[in-house]
Amino acid sequence: MALEKPNPLSKNSFSSDVDDGGLPTYSDIVAAASKFRGHVRPTPLLRFDELNELVEAEILLKAESLQRTGSFKFRGAYNKVRNVASQHPKTSIVSWSSGNHAQAVAAAARISSLPASIVMPKDAPEIKILGTKRQGAEIVFYDRARESREAIGTAIAKRKNAIIVPPYDDPLVIAGQGTVGLEAASQALNNDLIPDIALVPCGGGGLIAGCSIALQEQFPAIEIHPVEPIGFDDTTRSLETGRRKKNSGNGASICDALLAPTPGEITFRINSKRLSHGITVSDIDVLLAMNFAFQKLKLTIEPGGAVGLATLLANKELYKDKTVLIVLSGGNVDPAIFTEALSQ
Amino acid sequence: MALEKPNPLSKNSFSSDVDDGGLPTYSDIVAAASKFRGHVRPTPLLRFDELNELVEAEILLKAESLQRTGSFKFRGAYNKVRNVASQHPKTSIVSWSSGNHAQAVAAAARISSLPASIVMPKDAPEIKILGTKRQGAEIVFYDRARESREAIGTAIAKRKNAIIVPPYDDPLVIAGQGTVGLEAASQALNNDLIPDIALVPCGGGGLIAGCSIALQEQFPAIEIHPVEPIGFDDTTRSLETGRRKKNSGNGASICDALLAPTPGEITFRINSKRLSHGITVSDIDVLLAMNFAFQKLKLTIEPGGAVGLATLLANKELYKDKTVLIVLSGGNVDPAIFTEALSQ
Repeated sequence: MALEKPNPLSKNSFSSDVDDGGLPTYSDIVAAASKFRGHVRPTPLLRFDELNELVEAEILLKAESLQRTGSFKFRGAYNKVRNVASQHPKTSIVSWSSGNHAQAVAAAARISSLPASIVMPKDAPEIKILGTKRQGAEIVFYDRARESREAIGTAIAKRKNAIIVPPYDDPLVIAGQGTVGLEAASQALNNDLIPDIALVPCGGGGLIAGCSIALQEQFPAIEIHPVEPIGFDDTTRSLETGRRKKNSGNGASICDALLAPTPGEITFRINSKRLSHGITVSDIDVLLAMNFAFQKLKLTIEPGGAVGLATLLANKELYKDKTVLIVLSGGNVDPAIFTEALSQ
Repeated sequence: MALEKPNPLSKNSFSSDVDDGGLPTYSDIVAAASKFRGHVRPTPLLRFDELNELVEAEILLKAESLQRTGSFKFRGAYNKVRNVASQHPKTSIVSWSSGNHAQAVAAAARISSLPASIVMPKDAPEIKILGTKRQGAEIVFYDRARESREAIGTAIAKRKNAIIVPPYDDPLVIAGQGTVGLEAASQALNNDLIPDIALVPCGGGGLIAGCSIALQEQFPAIEIHPVEPIGFDDTTRSLETGRRKKNSGNGASICDALLAPTPGEITFRINSKRLSHGITVSDIDVLLAMNFAFQKLKLTIEPGGAVGLATLLANKELYKDKTVLIVLSGGNVDPAIFTEALSQ
């Protein structure tokens, strides 16, 4: 399943192997993947005839819900923490996260035998809080509406002389997260498929930044769209204006993984050059997509992980006759929300 | 993912390449798999660190819930229907099934452009009835407690001059279903893993019969246990006595896929020579396993598909330090039952 046929000689218009002022490169992504064996799991690229027939298209689903800790975040956290541990074997780790990065960092720190403190919102899904605790990390809660997790995390790091593992705005984190795209490209090529379009969930933009570097290396013509919840369309608006925009802070969405207030600085430098226009989806379309994934695909997908599938199902006509790669980025969802999806 | 490194020269004590009076052989299973490309999906063999740590064992999960039509049944149905269509391109198909074989036969018949009539119990899960209808098959309902589905199906076949595709007691069906074991063996070997034990759901015994032929070809020492719901332990008791026993008919179980009244004649000829003792599980253990699969593995598993995992989780101490292959045989479950599992 993993990483067959990478072609280091392929050329494209992005010249992504030339280091662009500290931005991660295609080589960084290949290097990250080369260290994964035994820790980061290759995830399947799934095709479902029924979905293909429904949309009259070729849909490729990258099931990162099946990744260790239940989301793609482990790829970036492992790549970063492994690097930190090799240089500073006695340090400790600090991070902040709505939940998926938290679990991922906690698991990666445990593998490297480093203590970890994670700043998490009080209202994070219980499954994510428990998952983080179980990995042995210390959790510091904050109020998503009134406090800055970055400020709290930075203060802890200073006090403990610890190293910060940011959720997205870090070259090693982005390179690790980009292995989702590297693996998917290889799997698509092994099936003689060239994606025309990729639909990728977007919070801070690390996943889609890394994936765009990897995917455009293999598929120079691919259109890559960030998908965001309505009310949290900071990347969509930033792409329109060419400048990083903030969310109003008044929105609400069940997509707890995609509520970052603004695009990352590093991620937006990548994404502003590589992405096609953004797409927003409603909570109800997300619930319907989760229901579809349960009924037809037999996969547990969390709200934030289902936005790409939600876009596809709500706009089938746009994707007719296309080959579409959709990243199902995570599966950590509390039973109450999942039950709501089942009742749709 | 599929079928790497089959070793036709490997030897074992079962001599399964020698045709034993019409029983399917290892070669039949390899032949079935060779015709699958583009129709039958290779499914992933999944490992989850958290599950391994919980049981202190190496657990390999064969996710047949991700197979076309949502269960392993499509492998057997496709192998049989393809063969029928090549010999009788103008015939029609009749079958009977609690639901998974129904959908599988309907899909296989549609691919081969043959009309299909399927006899299904009135109380089959709605998801299975709708899945069968959607494939264009005619459904004939019967009363599971009072009528014989075989008698009804045989009468229809006679009237329509149609060919019967039995759910398990047929060499081509068993060979197709055995490709689950062939694929899993290859995937395990690619990860340098040799299963000590396999836990396989057992209704009529087709899946485990085919899997045992394939698995014992590669792993002569493997112990293969059929897992059945309490009250439907016909194979367990048949193995104990060496003769095919019937269920009382008074039992009830949420494992709708595993309620066959007695082992098949052909399947029991295979299973009586190859299987280790049977294991039974309760509905509550099945619900807990479905919950675990949702929470930790992000997979939708139906009750009958979860019995192997239920056995493992309810008896962890028995599997410590072992490498255990578990077949998750299907994922077709109605939201009501799944919601019940989520509330455990």
